[in-house]
Amino acid sequence: MTATMDRKPTIMRSTDAELLRAITNPHSVALIGASGTPGSLTARPLAFLQKHGFGGRVFPVNPSRDVIGGLPAFASVSALPAPVDHALIMLDGDAAMRAVEDCAAAGVRCATVLAGGFAEAGEAGRARQDRLTRIARAAGMLLIGPNSIGIADTRSGFACTANAAFALDALPRGRTAVLSQSGSLIGTLLSRSAPLGIGFSTYVSLGNEAMADVARIGSLLLDDSETDAFVLFLETLRNREAFTAFARAARARGKPVLAYFSGRSDDGRALAVSHTGGLAGAAAAMDSYLASLGIDRVDLFETLIEAPPALLAAAPRMARRPARATVLSTTGGGGGMVLDRLSLAGVEIGGCPAAARAQLEARNISLGHGKLVDVTLAGTRYDTMKEVVSTLIADPETGLLVVAVGSSAQFNPELAVKPVLDAVAEAGPAAAPVLAVPLPHAPDSLRMLQAGGIPAFRSVETCAETIAMLFARSAARHLPEPAPELTAGVSAALRQATDRLAPGVQDEIASAALFAHLGIAGPQQVVLRDGEALPDPLPIGFPVVAKLISPDLPHKTEFGAVRIGIATPEALTQAIADMRATIAERKPGARIEGVLVSQMCKGLAEVLLGFSRDPLTGPMITVGMGGVLSEIYRDVALRPAPVSRETAHMMLDEVRGLAVLRGYRALPRGDLEALAGAVSALSQLAAFDRVSEAEINPLAVMPEGEGVVALDALIRLDT
Amino acid sequence: MTATMDRKPTIMRSTDAELLRAITNPHSVALIGASGTPGSLTARPLAFLQKHGFGGRVFPVNPSRDVIGGLPAFASVSALPAPVDHALIMLDGDAAMRAVEDCAAAGVRCATVLAGGFAEAGEAGRARQDRLTRIARAAGMLLIGPNSIGIADTRSGFACTANAAFALDALPRGRTAVLSQSGSLIGTLLSRSAPLGIGFSTYVSLGNEAMADVARIGSLLLDDSETDAFVLFLETLRNREAFTAFARAARARGKPVLAYFSGRSDDGRALAVSHTGGLAGAAAAMDSYLASLGIDRVDLFETLIEAPPALLAAAPRMARRPARATVLSTTGGGGGMVLDRLSLAGVEIGGCPAAARAQLEARNISLGHGKLVDVTLAGTRYDTMKEVVSTLIADPETGLLVVAVGSSAQFNPELAVKPVLDAVAEAGPAAAPVLAVPLPHAPDSLRMLQAGGIPAFRSVETCAETIAMLFARSAARHLPEPAPELTAGVSAALRQATDRLAPGVQDEIASAALFAHLGIAGPQQVVLRDGEALPDPLPIGFPVVAKLISPDLPHKTEFGAVRIGIATPEALTQAIADMRATIAERKPGARIEGVLVSQMCKGLAEVLLGFSRDPLTGPMITVGMGGVLSEIYRDVALRPAPVSRETAHMMLDEVRGLAVLRGYRALPRGDLEALAGAVSALSQLAAFDRVSEAEINPLAVMPEGEGVVALDALIRLDT
Repeated sequence: MTATMDRKPTIMRSTDAELLRAITNPHSVALIGASGTPGSLTARPLAFLQKHGFGGRVFPVNPSRDVIGGLPAFASVSALPAPVDHALIMLDGDAAMRAVEDCAAAGVRCATVLAGGFAEAGEAGRARQDRLTRIARAAGMLLIGPNSIGIADTRSGFACTANAAFALDALPRGRTAVLSQSGSLIGTLLSRSAPLGIGFSTYVSLGNEAMADVARIGSLLLDDSETDAFVLFLETLRNREAFTAFARAARARGKPVLAYFSGRSDDGRALAVSHTGGLAGAAAAMDSYLASLGIDRVDLFETLIEAPPALLAAAPRMARRPARATVLSTTGGGGGMVLDRLSLAGVEIGGCPAAARAQLEARNISLGHGKLVDVTLAGTRYDTMKEVVSTLIADPETGLLVVAVGSSAQFNPELAVKPVLDAVAEAGPAAAPVLAVPLPHAPDSLRMLQAGGIPAFRSVETCAETIAMLFARSAARHLPEPAPELTAGVSAALRQATDRLAPGVQDEIASAALFAHLGIAGPQQVVLRDGEALPDPLPIGFPVVAKLISPDLPHKTEFGAVRIGIATPEALTQAIADMRATIAERKPGARIEGVLVSQMCKGLAEVLLGFSRDPLTGPMITVGMGGVLSEIYRDVALRPAPVSRETAHMMLDEVRGLAVLRGYRALPRGDLEALAGAVSALSQLAAFDRVSEAEINPLAVMPEGEGVVALDALIRLDT
Repeated sequence: MTATMDRKPTIMRSTDAELLRAITNPHSVALIGASGTPGSLTARPLAFLQKHGFGGRVFPVNPSRDVIGGLPAFASVSALPAPVDHALIMLDGDAAMRAVEDCAAAGVRCATVLAGGFAEAGEAGRARQDRLTRIARAAGMLLIGPNSIGIADTRSGFACTANAAFALDALPRGRTAVLSQSGSLIGTLLSRSAPLGIGFSTYVSLGNEAMADVARIGSLLLDDSETDAFVLFLETLRNREAFTAFARAARARGKPVLAYFSGRSDDGRALAVSHTGGLAGAAAAMDSYLASLGIDRVDLFETLIEAPPALLAAAPRMARRPARATVLSTTGGGGGMVLDRLSLAGVEIGGCPAAARAQLEARNISLGHGKLVDVTLAGTRYDTMKEVVSTLIADPETGLLVVAVGSSAQFNPELAVKPVLDAVAEAGPAAAPVLAVPLPHAPDSLRMLQAGGIPAFRSVETCAETIAMLFARSAARHLPEPAPELTAGVSAALRQATDRLAPGVQDEIASAALFAHLGIAGPQQVVLRDGEALPDPLPIGFPVVAKLISPDLPHKTEFGAVRIGIATPEALTQAIADMRATIAERKPGARIEGVLVSQMCKGLAEVLLGFSRDPLTGPMITVGMGGVLSEIYRDVALRPAPVSRETAHMMLDEVRGLAVLRGYRALPRGDLEALAGAVSALSQLAAFDRVSEAEINPLAVMPEGEGVVALDALIRLDT
């Protein structure tokens, strides 16, 4: 062990602009641990920088070599002849740690660490990672990784990565940045996008995100005037607050963010924990969280590649057009397949607008029947195609035009691809946007189309997913209002009430009192602490429900600790005795602290409200149908908490079973306004860190104007 | 118009073997209407036959040319020097019709007609198509099309098609036949499969299927010893009985059938009608029909290409292995994505078997943590990969091995692709099957893998869909038993009963009588025909339900023509008077034919049973939750009718809401045996053509052993 920890690092606070430059186009880069053996992993970054024409200065650092890749090699960072913006550290173990210290001491703005063996490798690794972070923070140095495969910028040729995919002859440029928690995936994205004629601006492998996470790098790149969109490859989420802020800032700048989340299945989630040292959360919570930020989670991997150019090109033009797609095809069967898939994805299909049809038929161009604009009979000819495309995109009734090009796309792009390109090139800025999907394997046509500004798709499925996303984005221009804050009085009262309670699941009485602070009332009730006799007369009307109060019976119904529909005082006395006897037999040790007698209350429907905290996405609010149905159908709506009433109403609209309260089949309407209020109120528990979970099941929804009643409500407090 | 219709055709009944030969490798083919202009559509078939080395005799038929493509051209079919097995008719309109007549007269075994303008073009076209069929049938000639783009066989080079995709330099061979209702799709399948190193045996474009439909050609190809599987591209279904027979025969021969159905959305279905002159049915009915035959409907188009080689290679080996997949990867992130997708598709993920892990770790090969077998740390090296693959596939605990190859697959297949190929080549026949999915764009690796007998996938999504299909196929080796036939007595009684009834929706009384013949009983009840007084005492116990009998009130509840929970004779008299008054006010013209008084009957759950006839798939039986829930959640199971009790039980298992009858959360069990019996019984209506629809909603399911009661049941008869 050296004593380098004692060296005082140069503290150098770079501005965000300087950091942006350091990751996209540094003046100089040090390649620490660069190998002189061509083909080896640590020789790659230098080879890639040279191959892709990086214009900054490059300093190989390797004490055992004088020259590497034709450049003078240096023994250490401190020996470099000039300050360094970026250092790529390719050493392992303690050597990596020392290199980070050296960089910190030398005033390097940004260091990327390739080595693994940190947080993803267990407790000792996590401690080593914390040490890395402390060193970097103390020096004001941005640290990327560890466990990062590097960075590559296609504009500057700063291909500072060991990912083998960057051996490609040329890196296609684009206006979308890639931020990936997986290093291999930046290579997959490059490798799969290049043959499609699609490029990215910058690729960043974030590794373990010890210091620079998606949000930090994303926020820097928001200021890159040539980056208009982001694609994220996520395995976990490490800093929710920062991510939320980045997503909101991207939204404010009108820069779309798309995400692939590789931890949706139970097995995938478990893997995220072992593979990246991250946390695992529920897939549904992640979906809802991303959606609440206006981030599109894509389902098919290649949508991540093909969608951004389409969103960037088509979204501005769609602002003035109806949200529907017209499918034009040179082949009935293939065009039909495209149309079917779009419709399945929920895209409204427009046919040929009447005016366009009349105009084209006047020129003897037959368009087939039905919603598909099928020029098969007119023949696949340049003039016909160009005229049809020009006419369709000029028609104000056309929304988006999708051209499904038949077999000519493979060997004869001049027949049906070229005319589409020419028609689009000649059209004015008000023309409808055009997307294309060649049906055959047609790599040349795909590249021609992309190069000509027509977003194109390798598969009908990614095309359909993208268009559905495009239309959904334009339908939801505004994110819902944030939840209003609780009044100071309510907040203080609730905090005071929770402070008095011990950790754990609170009983019905305590829980009801907490919910009451939020304005969520239960039925009229009487509490009999153990041993107390029934008051005579009972101050609430019959029929009633009686329930044993016990910390040991979370599922009361299953243990026979609930009786409903009790009609007389005698029956009530009997029911209480029966329940006690049943519990004594079935669950002998259970503590019985009393009896809760509540007035029966039958709503139009019973719903479930739940509040919980997800390890990744934080406080979440759930609403669904009550009773067994919510479990069987998983018919619930989920949002990050807190939510406003407006959002609560959107949630209620998502719960299919609540149709019974929305006037379905002439059924009486329920008090959805009160229900939305209860959802919003419960979601306010997010502000009280001690509340880890709360559930109201069932909440009875009364007829319109008559409110909601929490029939069974529990709350759990942390220490 | 010529008088050719009067010519007496040569009647020539070919055997199936002769027809198989005529479509896959005819001794001779006539190209009627072949053009001498290179590049024109009708010049293509000759060019393709020559390019792909077809060995049979080729006769261009074109009265205005002497030589076409270097071959002597003939003026007509009757002028040909030798008999012809196959004729491709490339003429339009009346000329096409005359050519079919000529072929019939000349004893051609099989004629393919390219021309459109038949059934897909409306009434007149349908008449012309019928005439074509009559001519062919009379002569015993097999007619393919009209509206067919032709046939191509990759073994014989019989590329007798005008589809431009067949201009490819070589047609990859395979053991799967393509049968497509869309002509363009055979080109799409060729074009997209060839770069993946996947081929097909024969491509057949079926067009309008005037005579030769999917089933006819499929049945011929079942006897092709080099065709082991089928992929179908379907837009509609024209002959259900024949299709069913073909599917059963394929199943009996162990030849998998996969189908893509391009009419799943409402828009897609409408299109099938206008585009191919076919019928439209419900997508759910089609799914259920195909599944009942053991046909896999694929979701992603490219699964149709990639799945067959995988099923053929892996299914036999999986017979002796556990149904789970182990994912091996050279890259954590990419491997994780594959594992996540497989798990989402319902595939059970096996990790590294303990014995294999011990063996490999003893040789210092680190495999990562969790369920992903991750050799990232071991490095992407030939020796390591080969050893890991060999060890894993030899372990009896491994089910199926999926190798997710990282970036090396693109430029360095020797590192992680070659060792997989070598390990598989050296393994015995009992080794676990191996599939591969390269993460980067890696066309060379895909082809190497396929050529080496390792099915490979271009995308994680098609890989996941295929493996899920493979496992589902091996889990369901046997199709369910067919339904037993009704006894002659029941059948005769039911037929007699329906014969007496007028067409239309039958009233409750008549409907109940019909259901009673099937053994489905209603509650105890009393019928009061109009004017009849209530019997005193009422022969059934209170409480009761009273319902007006009327042909004009299909939705009785909405019109207030049903009263439930009537507890006394006085209340019953009052309720009947009230209902009459309500109807007189709300629906003044409605005919009231009487009152039905039934004993109230409360089951553990209410279900819906439905019988209907789909235009494509015929009689269908449905079971789902009763009341509004079935509509809101579409929680139903559907099958072609009739079904056996065994199938009925499988249907009940699919209805999620029926969990409440299966002992969910300690709820009492319902009489599922009686319910399955009722499903099977209702499905027997399939045999009675006059019954177009029947519905029991609700059917009350009583506790185990206590049966089911049809509370509301209607039946509709055709003329």
